[in-house]
Amino acid sequence: MDSELIDLRTGTREVVLDLTSRCEEYVAGRGDGLLHVFVPHATAGVAILETGAGSDTDLLAVLEELLPRDFGWRHRHGTPGHGRDHVLPAIIPPYATIPVLDGRLTLGTWQSICFIDTNIDNPERQVRLSFLAG
Amino acid sequence: MDSELIDLRTGTREVVLDLTSRCEEYVAGRGDGLLHVFVPHATAGVAILETGAGSDTDLLAVLEELLPRDFGWRHRHGTPGHGRDHVLPAIIPPYATIPVLDGRLTLGTWQSICFIDTNIDNPERQVRLSFLAG
Amino acid sequence: MDSELIDLRTGTREVVLDLTSRCEEYVAGRGDGLLHVFVPHATAGVAILETGAGSDTDLLAVLEELLPRDFGWRHRHGTPGHGRDHVLPAIIPPYATIPVLDGRLTLGTWQSICFIDTNIDNPERQVRLSFLAG
Repeated sequence: MDSELIDLRTGTREVVLDLTSRCEEYVAGRGDGLLHVFVPHATAGVAILETGAGSDTDLLAVLEELLPRDFGWRHRHGTPGHGRDHVLPAIIPPYATIPVLDGRLTLGTWQSICFIDTNIDNPERQVRLSFLAG
Repeated sequence: MDSELIDLRTGTREVVLDLTSRCEEYVAGRGDGLLHVFVPHATAGVAILETGAGSDTDLLAVLEELLPRDFGWRHRHGTPGHGRDHVLPAIIPPYATIPVLDGRLTLGTWQSICFIDTNIDNPERQVRLSFLAG
Repeated sequence: MDSELIDLRTGTREVVLDLTSRCEEYVAGRGDGLLHVFVPHATAGVAILETGAGSDTDLLAVLEELLPRDFGWRHRHGTPGHGRDHVLPAIIPPYATIPVLDGRLTLGTWQSICFIDTNIDNPERQVRLSFLAG
């Protein structure tokens, strides 16, 4: 199985980082199979959603409601409220799979593969891309 | 990799649409491997849950709470509240994977594969079924 | 495709049960591919998260807020509030996939593969582990 780690810089604020073009490059020329996107971090996830029309900001705003900073988290390391980042991957999984046909992702027109990171303590991140030929 | 798009009609209301029998037909006779269910839309997801005992209605009711129509969504196209539909795939991913043994899904007794669609603006939908032989 | 069911005992309270060591044993010696973890139950899920620093308790606490026992669930079998357990797999999917390289899971340092079960009516559970060689 081909598999590689790519480096990301997320900076020091919450981000929805579009990985689609890097995924497209990765699968180009590979024929048919499954792209597997994996985040090897305990405080980030992968989501497939539309970007550029407000939904990325909407997702971060909803997460403020669903996982409020002031919830009284048991997990107390890092920045106040960091406990929420550790629950995030249960709601937004750290993996995604997308069919690839003839070296192209079969995403719909408005779908992007996004790295979701509410952890502002760690600006250096990685994502593992793997390809299962089918 | 074998992969095909199937057409769905969701009508003009929120739906939990059971795809299990179509998935069963798709994997029949294929031996062992992984069924991949993919929704090529930015406003729908796939969930594996019990249907027919109220949980499908319960899920739509919970989504009204978690993603309220009147949240002040930045995304403002379509029907009022449509912004929530664009966040849904971050919570309910647009893909699912189910092991197949000897041409049969290994679902538990009460599990169904469901298309979850709160987007009432688009009654014509598609789902991609793919099979990775293993 | 190699695939096997393992038995779990969850007892009679909500649990976040760490399956990582059983998954490590399962993939050991298998080379490269994808580990597929599947829960054949309609009231449990799989999450990849940190355990042992409070986040497992935090997740169960958040689920009390997101899926409250007293929500007026349509699904009314079992213990009062059991309807929430049937919606849980839409939020925390009953499957997960993790790349395996040279017989080892590519999990990050703080990631564990966990069985999430809020259903206190059923202490006997199973998880299916499958390996797709790649």
